[in-house]
Amino acid sequence: MSRVAYVDGQYLPHRSAAVHIEDRGYQFADGVYEVLAVTGGRLVDEESHLIRLAKSLSELRIAAPMSNSALRIVMREAIRRNRVREGILYLQVTRGAARREHAFPKAAQPVLVVTSRHTRRTDPQIAERGIAVVTIPDIRWQRCDIKSIALLPNVLGKQLARDAGAFEAWQVDREGFVTEGTSTNAWIVAADRTVMTRRADTAILNGVTRLAVLEIIARDGYRFVERAFSVAEAKAASEAFLTSTTVDLLPVVRIDDAPVGTGMPGPLARKLREGYLAHVTEAA
Amino acid sequence: MSRVAYVDGQYLPHRSAAVHIEDRGYQFADGVYEVLAVTGGRLVDEESHLIRLAKSLSELRIAAPMSNSALRIVMREAIRRNRVREGILYLQVTRGAARREHAFPKAAQPVLVVTSRHTRRTDPQIAERGIAVVTIPDIRWQRCDIKSIALLPNVLGKQLARDAGAFEAWQVDREGFVTEGTSTNAWIVAADRTVMTRRADTAILNGVTRLAVLEIIARDGYRFVERAFSVAEAKAASEAFLTSTTVDLLPVVRIDDAPVGTGMPGPLARKLREGYLAHVTEAA
Repeated sequence: MSRVAYVDGQYLPHRSAAVHIEDRGYQFADGVYEVLAVTGGRLVDEESHLIRLAKSLSELRIAAPMSNSALRIVMREAIRRNRVREGILYLQVTRGAARREHAFPKAAQPVLVVTSRHTRRTDPQIAERGIAVVTIPDIRWQRCDIKSIALLPNVLGKQLARDAGAFEAWQVDREGFVTEGTSTNAWIVAADRTVMTRRADTAILNGVTRLAVLEIIARDGYRFVERAFSVAEAKAASEAFLTSTTVDLLPVVRIDDAPVGTGMPGPLARKLREGYLAHVTEAA
Repeated sequence: MSRVAYVDGQYLPHRSAAVHIEDRGYQFADGVYEVLAVTGGRLVDEESHLIRLAKSLSELRIAAPMSNSALRIVMREAIRRNRVREGILYLQVTRGAARREHAFPKAAQPVLVVTSRHTRRTDPQIAERGIAVVTIPDIRWQRCDIKSIALLPNVLGKQLARDAGAFEAWQVDREGFVTEGTSTNAWIVAADRTVMTRRADTAILNGVTRLAVLEIIARDGYRFVERAFSVAEAKAASEAFLTSTTVDLLPVVRIDDAPVGTGMPGPLARKLREGYLAHVTEAA
């Protein structure tokens, strides 16, 4: 079966799906995106993603390419046409194509691209073993709350992690506090069992999975504080984990050269992972 | 005459020139670019641009899409096919198309896009009158020495300038020093006639026009110091100006609400502009 992509009003064969070379997404990273999980053929946390998409567009003063109800139809059609049961849906909105000039063009029409494909959920053995992260300086811009496609620093950071044999890189601000991973939010569990993650300031993306895990924490009554933690606090933590739409929740068992806690996934990370997977399953 | 663009090995009608939706330039801003001036049908400072392109590619570990000699041929062909005498040549190299994942793909081939078009040189009356700049916080990433296409903060900054009725926005670092404009380098002339521009550290792009003006300053023996200047120093300066490939050298006569010096273009800016335009003409 050949894949299909939605591009600016048309469903096209994925292989030949293209955008103009003067699309501002290509020349200026002038656009935003969302990645949604698909389970049982249904979108997980669709409403939260649409709310965040609207926020990102609004921050960049890009008009919505269509109404949310029309967008919901396109997303479902992308899933249906690609026969995705378990996988992801990717959508991207750019300011559109225009003669190259930095300032906003007067006449450009926003361009929407939507793709969907089958993916396996992260191998449960990875969650069983836990993963390693390295810490790197956060060199990104100061509006990481906007889910923009200006992801070059994230790409370079992820590659640094790969080069170091790690799953993810945790980015560290000038004050020595962890902001987030290059495509995941960062969490620790302190020795007194308090779960910690950074407040959703302009230095991090407010992950939809982050929000779902916060709800589970509130519902189940875990001790919690929303504040930045330092690298030293992370290394001294009894547990650590990370979250994102594509990896769900994964225990972190090593930070740089130091094991976290026992060097094995901790009990709270396991429980929260189970809680989150149950939340995903509810969507199906 | 219809325009033609070079895209990944082919010369295509500009109107239908496109790149794949999974080109990493589109999804991750994972690429670099150059803008060269064309005068008398010839490229200005071609060698400097090629050197900088190689540096940008190297920093991102993107392979050159072709040899420099082949690239020179493509650039000339783009100029010739579009019959450009006075204008610009734009080239962009991305890491290529690959299934979306942050880390570098194993198999992607770099994609080169080259366009060229006629443009008028900046209206001499603008240089006669001088232009206004506003100052804004520099919120960009910490590797602005790489000429990457992750230009979203520059876009937003330029739009802030437009909204304020200014030509450009000068970005200011956390210490209160001007880094550069959103698409131009920033210069002042202090009361003692010393020309100043920021050292080419990782906070600014080392402009090719900047380098050419530095050579003129050295050749003609103007007093000069390469160091960062504060917004207060800029407002107290006797002259100010900015440089880039697309605007050459333009006098700055207003910074935020304050006139610079007399509020008219200063004598040094005029002389350096003349010197730079002579340098451009030499290329023809």
